[in-house]
Amino acid sequence: MSSKVNVGLIGAGRIGRLHAEHLAFRIPQAELLVVSDIVPQAAQRCAADFSIPTATPDHRAVMEDGAIEAVVICSSTDTHAALIEEAAAAGKHIFCEKPIDFDLARIDRALAAVERAGVKLQIGFNRRFDPNFKRVHDLVAEGAIGEVHILRITSRDPAPPPIEYVKVSGGIFLDMTIHDFDMARYLVGSEVEEIYAAGGVMVDPAIGAVGDIDTAVITLRFADGAIGTIDNSRQAVYGYDQRVEVFGSAGAVVADNDYPSTAVVSDAQRVHRDLPLNFFMERYVDSYVAEMEAFIQCVQEDRPVPVTGMDGRVPVVMGYAARRSYEENRPVKLSEIAPA
Amino acid sequence: MSSKVNVGLIGAGRIGRLHAEHLAFRIPQAELLVVSDIVPQAAQRCAADFSIPTATPDHRAVMEDGAIEAVVICSSTDTHAALIEEAAAAGKHIFCEKPIDFDLARIDRALAAVERAGVKLQIGFNRRFDPNFKRVHDLVAEGAIGEVHILRITSRDPAPPPIEYVKVSGGIFLDMTIHDFDMARYLVGSEVEEIYAAGGVMVDPAIGAVGDIDTAVITLRFADGAIGTIDNSRQAVYGYDQRVEVFGSAGAVVADNDYPSTAVVSDAQRVHRDLPLNFFMERYVDSYVAEMEAFIQCVQEDRPVPVTGMDGRVPVVMGYAARRSYEENRPVKLSEIAPA
Amino acid sequence: MSSKVNVGLIGAGRIGRLHAEHLAFRIPQAELLVVSDIVPQAAQRCAADFSIPTATPDHRAVMEDGAIEAVVICSSTDTHAALIEEAAAAGKHIFCEKPIDFDLARIDRALAAVERAGVKLQIGFNRRFDPNFKRVHDLVAEGAIGEVHILRITSRDPAPPPIEYVKVSGGIFLDMTIHDFDMARYLVGSEVEEIYAAGGVMVDPAIGAVGDIDTAVITLRFADGAIGTIDNSRQAVYGYDQRVEVFGSAGAVVADNDYPSTAVVSDAQRVHRDLPLNFFMERYVDSYVAEMEAFIQCVQEDRPVPVTGMDGRVPVVMGYAARRSYEENRPVKLSEIAPA
Amino acid sequence: MSSKVNVGLIGAGRIGRLHAEHLAFRIPQAELLVVSDIVPQAAQRCAADFSIPTATPDHRAVMEDGAIEAVVICSSTDTHAALIEEAAAAGKHIFCEKPIDFDLARIDRALAAVERAGVKLQIGFNRRFDPNFKRVHDLVAEGAIGEVHILRITSRDPAPPPIEYVKVSGGIFLDMTIHDFDMARYLVGSEVEEIYAAGGVMVDPAIGAVGDIDTAVITLRFADGAIGTIDNSRQAVYGYDQRVEVFGSAGAVVADNDYPSTAVVSDAQRVHRDLPLNFFMERYVDSYVAEMEAFIQCVQEDRPVPVTGMDGRVPVVMGYAARRSYEENRPVKLSEIAPA
Repeated sequence: MSSKVNVGLIGAGRIGRLHAEHLAFRIPQAELLVVSDIVPQAAQRCAADFSIPTATPDHRAVMEDGAIEAVVICSSTDTHAALIEEAAAAGKHIFCEKPIDFDLARIDRALAAVERAGVKLQIGFNRRFDPNFKRVHDLVAEGAIGEVHILRITSRDPAPPPIEYVKVSGGIFLDMTIHDFDMARYLVGSEVEEIYAAGGVMVDPAIGAVGDIDTAVITLRFADGAIGTIDNSRQAVYGYDQRVEVFGSAGAVVADNDYPSTAVVSDAQRVHRDLPLNFFMERYVDSYVAEMEAFIQCVQEDRPVPVTGMDGRVPVVMGYAARRSYEENRPVKLSEIAPA
Repeated sequence: MSSKVNVGLIGAGRIGRLHAEHLAFRIPQAELLVVSDIVPQAAQRCAADFSIPTATPDHRAVMEDGAIEAVVICSSTDTHAALIEEAAAAGKHIFCEKPIDFDLARIDRALAAVERAGVKLQIGFNRRFDPNFKRVHDLVAEGAIGEVHILRITSRDPAPPPIEYVKVSGGIFLDMTIHDFDMARYLVGSEVEEIYAAGGVMVDPAIGAVGDIDTAVITLRFADGAIGTIDNSRQAVYGYDQRVEVFGSAGAVVADNDYPSTAVVSDAQRVHRDLPLNFFMERYVDSYVAEMEAFIQCVQEDRPVPVTGMDGRVPVVMGYAARRSYEENRPVKLSEIAPA
Repeated sequence: MSSKVNVGLIGAGRIGRLHAEHLAFRIPQAELLVVSDIVPQAAQRCAADFSIPTATPDHRAVMEDGAIEAVVICSSTDTHAALIEEAAAAGKHIFCEKPIDFDLARIDRALAAVERAGVKLQIGFNRRFDPNFKRVHDLVAEGAIGEVHILRITSRDPAPPPIEYVKVSGGIFLDMTIHDFDMARYLVGSEVEEIYAAGGVMVDPAIGAVGDIDTAVITLRFADGAIGTIDNSRQAVYGYDQRVEVFGSAGAVVADNDYPSTAVVSDAQRVHRDLPLNFFMERYVDSYVAEMEAFIQCVQEDRPVPVTGMDGRVPVVMGYAARRSYEENRPVKLSEIAPA
Repeated sequence: MSSKVNVGLIGAGRIGRLHAEHLAFRIPQAELLVVSDIVPQAAQRCAADFSIPTATPDHRAVMEDGAIEAVVICSSTDTHAALIEEAAAAGKHIFCEKPIDFDLARIDRALAAVERAGVKLQIGFNRRFDPNFKRVHDLVAEGAIGEVHILRITSRDPAPPPIEYVKVSGGIFLDMTIHDFDMARYLVGSEVEEIYAAGGVMVDPAIGAVGDIDTAVITLRFADGAIGTIDNSRQAVYGYDQRVEVFGSAGAVVADNDYPSTAVVSDAQRVHRDLPLNFFMERYVDSYVAEMEAFIQCVQEDRPVPVTGMDGRVPVVMGYAARRSYEENRPVKLSEIAPA
């Protein structure tokens, strides 16, 4: 067994702390040596809570630390691309939260820097590591349902984010559907060539007032001929609704939601159970551990990462294509979307 | 209680015999007095099997029989419109299998004849009477899920029809999706304004060779803002797959397939159960009884029928819009489709 | 194909009318020629409703009618044994509702008469023909779960019968559990040798006041070593609860309840569906048709019936053993129970 | 918030290591300071893996460490009672794996020592903390199903333990059913007064050869009138089968097994999914964390523990009663079982 991988964490917000806990306590092959955050107290609290030796307000301390082999980037989205370039220049392997950036040219510069440096870059599309979706993927990949004909993704949030966030989110297609675009590519194993998006403001007029929509149904045409459909809502009152179905020449596979327990009550009125898991960090906790385990293992064993920089770029292109399709009410090819 | 309704049946093929059995044995308020079929033996066998007093090769014997209050038209599609006009002229109430016709002008003439005569016309969209779909409809109608935002219909056949049939079927949108178009209007309770259809030949190249497709994903925009999506395949190897989901501001309701039994086996390999019901006459038998009961009751009690002539016309328009959308790869408004 | 079987029906109460409808309208191979009931109007109404040529208040008219090949006995329980003897003497094949009698000596006389006459006798344990339970039986019989180790039967009624009925019902074990005793033998395919019954009055003290119990848990030891357990309640507020599970060396098979539809609602409070079918004639309607079809077919093709007179006797013995076990709080062998 | 609880661990075998990981990494309020194991390397490896400052081969080092407030006893069963007495004498709070002992007199001495010392003792019946069973418990406790009438527990292992283990296990009732006895008391909230056990050797004759059985069906009579039934098998080829059902005056609640994913495949043969979780440490991992969290919290906040010493004693009594019932084939009252 090779030695442990020394890791530095940049960004100690909600998602950074989640990765810190996993790196510190759930992944024996990782050694989390340093955490940085521009808010010094955030870095210090994270270090204290997860037994991290060093806390710093300056991410350069991480980049310059010769003991660090891999960095985990959990800072705000607008810093991702620059930090990737810095880390690549410093020869560190990189795990970066999604999205890399909303600007395709900046993404391309970052990916070029990674390629030049010869380091690994894994993007945080954690849902690929969810046990339900991974099982669907594996069944499709091993041919259990034959050739894929139709993909269906249902992806609905329990409640819309604050309007202030909606304003800077990049819009529903880049903020929310981006996960489903990645899922679509992951499950079907083929590239999307064309997108048609229908949508509207049905949940909250305030979302429409800032130029976004809250409900969408998206059609995907894949290079291999398969057709996909995604439906999104910013508000499913019954909780986090995340299901997929892949239909093919030899059968179909579906994945249902996860529930807090299997208890079902029959009373004089109805048969009922509790709502599905409501919070994404609860629903997807296993996937966050698994994606980081995979990253650490790829570094340790020098293997290709399972979610590449290109896997991080394509869904951004899809988000732009979906937006244009929605605005112009016509199918849009991905080839129409190019860096500004 | 009013007296029984005297009924005449035109067409003693598969679906005609089904209605004959129900009228004769399952619906006490109906009195099936005569059956006609251009194949004399078919009419005679039907009469013998279901205790019908009179069999005739000539449908005019039914039309001219003063004792007959209602006719059930189960002959071939190309005869429907003319028979509706004849029956209307004879003052008979009419139950007619779908579709009325593929020619909108002929449909309009038939509907005008019905209106002039003041008789009832019910179209055989039996799936509205399926216990699963009816329950979904009723829950939506009573507000259990609030305002409708998203509709999803999965509709897949166990196997494609013979190529000879495909050639004359009117194409997948008029032959197969037509049921789903009706279901969409029934469940959402709003009219569709625009359709976008993606599709392809994935099941059998022979279907493509005669100018049709076998797989489709269709997006519907409703007048009230809701968005729907239908996915169709001519071949689900696991059987007849007929599911719906309606998602709204206060929740969602889904209906699953029907299975031949509830038995589930867990063995050393897997947890498994038998495939869903495979044959539409088995899957939908209750709905056929229920639609005919409803028709007989409406005649008996002089109430409006639950599936009108206009309900028969609109899905044909939707079928043409879907076809044009598929051919031109753009969203098509229903208002673009007019009688030739 | 052999000719139709001419049938006479004795008893036009609720269950008699059910069989009349099936014989008249659902089973083409049967010809229901006569119905008798000691209440003349009941016989006449039954005849009118189901197109039966002859109605009579005297069951002897059925027995003496040379055209009748088979009789269906649906009169009150206390008349079953005598009518079986009469029918056997008249050379008629017999379908008799359960139970044959509560007196083992009378049962034995009736079975002896049947044997002497060489006629067929099928007992109305309809649940064997329920699609769920039949599928479980078939899977077990074909070895899908290996050798049977454990059987579990859940059998709960929606509501207790009227106290007047409870008084004359023979007690819960002979009135209600008798069906489960038959199911146990049917599913396991081995005879029960010993019974231990625990029970109590939990639903309604009035049931206790007339000497009966309303809740029971019964342990069965089979000759082949398997162990079974049955739980009964006179009142499941959520409806008719009828489930089984058979566990064996190679797996397990379970059968769930039947529901009026597959619709499931998720709202802001819970995920819920409608209660299971509540009324036995709704839950078991298919089984009633199927058992009668089987009987008619056995007569027509001169094959052994699927539920024999001995199948009718054994559950009565089991009922007595369960009662004694409950009263003496000890396991009781079936061999302890003998005709008075 | 009060300060952390300093913990010492005794026994670094499979279950000890599990608790060590949870105390070290999943429960922030615990500080695991020392681990002892009579195998020095086991203690050292455990210390290294879970960042425990001190490892020792001598449990007395734990008992004598003034900084330790609570000990977690995971050594072999025959040491439990003596270690409880030692820990109590040392004034430590105690978490002890089940069973306390197989000798009731020794259990009673240990419980007396705990009581004299005024320390807390929690027994490791972890299944009470399983999300499924806890939800059932809570629903029953809050009256969701009214008064309890019937309890059903299905508890089947994936495979029998090695024969060497079976020999010293205390027999199926003390080794396996003991968990179900605890579950029965937990779910119903009433004491069991009488037990009837049927059983046999169906899985492996070798188990019979060492005087044990491998299959059992047990009837429980509760003080409040409810009746329970447990079925056990040492081998469910489809995996770990752990389900419960509680039926009452106002409804029923059932808990199903846990599965590794929600993916369901429909292919040309059947509808199927993967087997339920097979390994108890996977199936019950959350419950192990939760029971230890509860213990730490009770120590920290000086509250009564949720699983008491008496909760550890009663199931042992039930195990003896079940064994006697099986041997004598009669219902046995718990009051018949007394310390030797």
